[in-house]
Amino acid sequence: MAQKMKVALLTKPGVIEIVERGIPVPADDEVLIRVRAVGLCGSDVHYYEHGKIGPYVVEKPIILGHEASGDIAAAGKNVRHLKEGQRVAIEPGVTCGRCAHCKAGRYNLCPHVRFLATPPVDGAFCEYIAMRSDFVFPIPDHLSYEAAAMVEPLSVGIHAVRRGRLQPGQTVAVFGMGPVGILAAVAAKAFGAKRVIGVDLEAFRLDVALRMGATDVVNIRERDPVEAIRAMTDGIGVDLAVETAGNPKALQAAVASVRRGGSVSVVGLPPQNEAPLNVSHVVDNEIDIRGVFRYRNTYPAGIDLLAAGQIDLSPMFTDKMSLENTPEAFRKAIHEKSRTVKIVIYP
Amino acid sequence: MAQKMKVALLTKPGVIEIVERGIPVPADDEVLIRVRAVGLCGSDVHYYEHGKIGPYVVEKPIILGHEASGDIAAAGKNVRHLKEGQRVAIEPGVTCGRCAHCKAGRYNLCPHVRFLATPPVDGAFCEYIAMRSDFVFPIPDHLSYEAAAMVEPLSVGIHAVRRGRLQPGQTVAVFGMGPVGILAAVAAKAFGAKRVIGVDLEAFRLDVALRMGATDVVNIRERDPVEAIRAMTDGIGVDLAVETAGNPKALQAAVASVRRGGSVSVVGLPPQNEAPLNVSHVVDNEIDIRGVFRYRNTYPAGIDLLAAGQIDLSPMFTDKMSLENTPEAFRKAIHEKSRTVKIVIYP
Amino acid sequence: MAQKMKVALLTKPGVIEIVERGIPVPADDEVLIRVRAVGLCGSDVHYYEHGKIGPYVVEKPIILGHEASGDIAAAGKNVRHLKEGQRVAIEPGVTCGRCAHCKAGRYNLCPHVRFLATPPVDGAFCEYIAMRSDFVFPIPDHLSYEAAAMVEPLSVGIHAVRRGRLQPGQTVAVFGMGPVGILAAVAAKAFGAKRVIGVDLEAFRLDVALRMGATDVVNIRERDPVEAIRAMTDGIGVDLAVETAGNPKALQAAVASVRRGGSVSVVGLPPQNEAPLNVSHVVDNEIDIRGVFRYRNTYPAGIDLLAAGQIDLSPMFTDKMSLENTPEAFRKAIHEKSRTVKIVIYP
Amino acid sequence: MAQKMKVALLTKPGVIEIVERGIPVPADDEVLIRVRAVGLCGSDVHYYEHGKIGPYVVEKPIILGHEASGDIAAAGKNVRHLKEGQRVAIEPGVTCGRCAHCKAGRYNLCPHVRFLATPPVDGAFCEYIAMRSDFVFPIPDHLSYEAAAMVEPLSVGIHAVRRGRLQPGQTVAVFGMGPVGILAAVAAKAFGAKRVIGVDLEAFRLDVALRMGATDVVNIRERDPVEAIRAMTDGIGVDLAVETAGNPKALQAAVASVRRGGSVSVVGLPPQNEAPLNVSHVVDNEIDIRGVFRYRNTYPAGIDLLAAGQIDLSPMFTDKMSLENTPEAFRKAIHEKSRTVKIVIYP
Repeated sequence: MAQKMKVALLTKPGVIEIVERGIPVPADDEVLIRVRAVGLCGSDVHYYEHGKIGPYVVEKPIILGHEASGDIAAAGKNVRHLKEGQRVAIEPGVTCGRCAHCKAGRYNLCPHVRFLATPPVDGAFCEYIAMRSDFVFPIPDHLSYEAAAMVEPLSVGIHAVRRGRLQPGQTVAVFGMGPVGILAAVAAKAFGAKRVIGVDLEAFRLDVALRMGATDVVNIRERDPVEAIRAMTDGIGVDLAVETAGNPKALQAAVASVRRGGSVSVVGLPPQNEAPLNVSHVVDNEIDIRGVFRYRNTYPAGIDLLAAGQIDLSPMFTDKMSLENTPEAFRKAIHEKSRTVKIVIYP
Repeated sequence: MAQKMKVALLTKPGVIEIVERGIPVPADDEVLIRVRAVGLCGSDVHYYEHGKIGPYVVEKPIILGHEASGDIAAAGKNVRHLKEGQRVAIEPGVTCGRCAHCKAGRYNLCPHVRFLATPPVDGAFCEYIAMRSDFVFPIPDHLSYEAAAMVEPLSVGIHAVRRGRLQPGQTVAVFGMGPVGILAAVAAKAFGAKRVIGVDLEAFRLDVALRMGATDVVNIRERDPVEAIRAMTDGIGVDLAVETAGNPKALQAAVASVRRGGSVSVVGLPPQNEAPLNVSHVVDNEIDIRGVFRYRNTYPAGIDLLAAGQIDLSPMFTDKMSLENTPEAFRKAIHEKSRTVKIVIYP
Repeated sequence: MAQKMKVALLTKPGVIEIVERGIPVPADDEVLIRVRAVGLCGSDVHYYEHGKIGPYVVEKPIILGHEASGDIAAAGKNVRHLKEGQRVAIEPGVTCGRCAHCKAGRYNLCPHVRFLATPPVDGAFCEYIAMRSDFVFPIPDHLSYEAAAMVEPLSVGIHAVRRGRLQPGQTVAVFGMGPVGILAAVAAKAFGAKRVIGVDLEAFRLDVALRMGATDVVNIRERDPVEAIRAMTDGIGVDLAVETAGNPKALQAAVASVRRGGSVSVVGLPPQNEAPLNVSHVVDNEIDIRGVFRYRNTYPAGIDLLAAGQIDLSPMFTDKMSLENTPEAFRKAIHEKSRTVKIVIYP
Repeated sequence: MAQKMKVALLTKPGVIEIVERGIPVPADDEVLIRVRAVGLCGSDVHYYEHGKIGPYVVEKPIILGHEASGDIAAAGKNVRHLKEGQRVAIEPGVTCGRCAHCKAGRYNLCPHVRFLATPPVDGAFCEYIAMRSDFVFPIPDHLSYEAAAMVEPLSVGIHAVRRGRLQPGQTVAVFGMGPVGILAAVAAKAFGAKRVIGVDLEAFRLDVALRMGATDVVNIRERDPVEAIRAMTDGIGVDLAVETAGNPKALQAAVASVRRGGSVSVVGLPPQNEAPLNVSHVVDNEIDIRGVFRYRNTYPAGIDLLAAGQIDLSPMFTDKMSLENTPEAFRKAIHEKSRTVKIVIYP
């Protein structure tokens, strides 16, 4: 296909240019997707600012963006369950299906994964993308493209509460009310949690959390979160804490706020990697702490959850912009942090 | 019963006196046990030296010792499954059976537990003890009293590997080759682990571990344990690490030595409670870390395991002493640490 | 206490008399409850008609009724968490807390259980009842007594979906739209099931089910349930089927209607005990079939679920009657089956 | 590759001919294996006699045999972990890695599986076979080819005890002492079962079972198996029963012989598909019944188990024959059933 498309290309740290590229040709087991909405994620911003995340280094120009939805533009000859024109959400990590992790159903740990917008794999801030068809999921007509794009961060939330063995009727505290934290609260509510407590230091984000499903919030500028959570749970503590802030103090508070026999799901990465852990407290109270890396088998459930129509995602979409404005979107994400939750690009 | 018995009484920190006390009278649902063997545990030594462990303070004279076996001397009128003369092992924590933890099957978290040798509850360094009958388990004739007493620390090991979801064919590293660590290695082997790596800094203890079931050992004075464990597992890491040393460095090594998607069971309490945790490593590799507090539902399995006769506990019984020599036993435990593993008292 | 209360006594099969009895005196760990609402259950009717259920035979006059709520009238001296005047729901099976099943958290299998209205234990069709306090649960002011009484059959539904490992977003079919089946559908919905299909042959009951939470219904007089359920699930089958009808054909349909790798929770007892099972289908599709006996650890979750206020139980309360009318209630239950769902007695 | 190999071809029911075929050429992700040992399985015999199993019909000549081991003869260019000359065991079902079952880790339920010797897929009674490399597992030098071939039926046993959640120290009864039943007993022992009771009606097979790991046997010609099993377990019943006989009476006995709260893993397919189930017993005792279809993620554990050297498989290898004698092997399997356990072909 000699046709061209527009892409937002990170040419070097801090510089995104809108350029033309050839439209990819889908392989036999792939579909070509006309991208319609892409969320801007913190990891995109991190690559933009620092040119790397841990071992992943941007060594040549890359297209960022991995929270995406769109329409099927063409389907490879072996694709059965998708056809042209269908509206879809994209699960951005293509796994091998053959390693021990994949075969055990923990495909998020596949060492051979190719994940959108993780160097050297290009992402979705562009008009077209080719994806292996088993990672592309139909969405109902009434689900908006931006909502479908949010199935990606929602998947992290779903995986975090699944890893935490959340049972209906239990109580949950979520630390960090960024998009992942808010959507973890949404997932916890959908899983039947009777109380979901959002914790952050930005009043604006706590307000969004309350409008989207948190039953209670704690502003750590005003109250000690552990004391507040204990007070909200008759002194017992929550059944599950989800840490999304990537802050050592938040992790310490999360561990301190769960009940005896409770669980902590850890999503956030602290900037210095390490955090002090109160081991004696963990042992004496037989607490489970579980790392949460991306997600697995979450897309159907995530789409159903949003399609059910009981969750209004609109409070989190603080900015909507065109592909041409991608550079501006990154600037906003960095400099207007206190008033943005999720910026959506419409290629 | 006006009869008297001899007890080893901790009258103040550092002082144990052999005195007389009245033999207890069992309640209707209790049995009276003629104690035959009691292991000396690190927690006994800690109370002896410091007069407290965390919130538990020795405020009046107390009998220590909670790893015990003996014979039934008398049975309360409601006791059905035990009768005079029967040889038994004693599970030392009597729980309420009525709180939410007990009803959920996690009775080791019962807040109302009365645990032998935990102030103000007296323990078993004495001739007779009364116990609620459902915590007293028959043992076969061929199982020695000292082996039966070891079901207590073995229970910690069983619970640690159960909490770590150990599957047959998996690999395990156990940090700390004290009695609990050695018996965790024994439990891991009995659960079908194909490789059980013991880690310590005392050559003497590593040798005992090898004789009792560890397939490999690492002396951290000679080798970096993480590197050694990776080398022994084709670079993958172990499926499960059990930390019993109560040392921050051991915990860090345990976390670093498990495979992607692996588990760490934490038994040991660090002296300062806290240890640094590599959170990014835990998240990226989706590691589970689980506190292990005592044990639950382990006695029948523990007795069966020892009764099966494939484990020779004799290498760990470094000293055997009479009740009169209890003061000497404590002195040995403190001053001859590098050559003792388990001291057994025979009242 | 020499005071008298009114009780509805089953003096022989088919005969219930309203008589006077002494008000029970609570033991130290019990509370005395002024009973306010009691549901009439199919097992009560069975004892009334046949004088026995399996091995349980009515050998002397008995008070039936085990779905009960009320107020605390007095509390034994060891009771801490309940006080006079408090409104409560009653979990009707008092277990030993000491057997292997109780200690493993499966207390519903306790062989020593004393269950209300199971011979020779008296039930709750009376003004006062004494219960061990750990089986008595406070309810909020806004929860009606009849709703609180329904926590009992709801518990069966909760346990059935828990046993079936129901995950949010999954699909469920419930066979039999009696009170337990309807409340299993309610529980499945509360656990996040996206589709809950009720199956019965009475249009009246299916209508109640639709009003209380079923998303779809199948009248087996009109459609083959297996075909209908497959059609509703894109040919895949449901993730979980719950069989409450106690009918061999219903069990066969339940097994045939789950997806590959799906589960069947079996609650209903067929009159002749046996039913034919398509073993090859179970093996080829690796289906799980699990018996469901009563429930465990369900009351807090059940009360929360009803207190959340999103479920209107009123469609199922087809008759409300006084204690004096208990004989009439039993007659209605037997002779007006096709128009009653749940009859509530208010002592 | 123009080279030829010998194959044993089922040309029509009851007729196997030794013919020549072209040696297959491995694809980029495949290896070519020089087959060294292949077990003759009951399903091979069933295809030979009846030309079909359920929906699978032999419509054109087919090579049977799916329990195989050999040496790597050549490796496709994308294969990394295997190289020429390496000795290997072959997992015979190649799954898609992309469907919902594969992604959930239940790849044995993959509807797209291509399974050796299941029409129209050729099997391993031949000199060479090409396999996708992720289903080919290295074996240690000291493991014989015939033992490595047995990892296949052993995998069924491992999966059956895993599905039954077997815990160390538990008790197991295995119904049917054919190769799968015997190897299920071997697996149960390796998983730490303290008592493994084999049940059959052939004294010869029970003797082999005893020599290979069963702790007890019951000949149903001599004793009622349910009574015998209850007697061997203090009247309690076993924790897990594994049904491999494919006989309705055996399934009924399996269900009746487990303890309250116990499990039944069902492997065997009854000839008429159906068997009567005592539903009331299943409900009152909250028994789990689980279908077991082939296996998943068992090969590494199975190889380790056999490589550990504690199991002597020789009693089960009743006949060893060359590829040329494959027709004779099938005749033996049919006509000398009472004295054969496993016939191995060496191509």
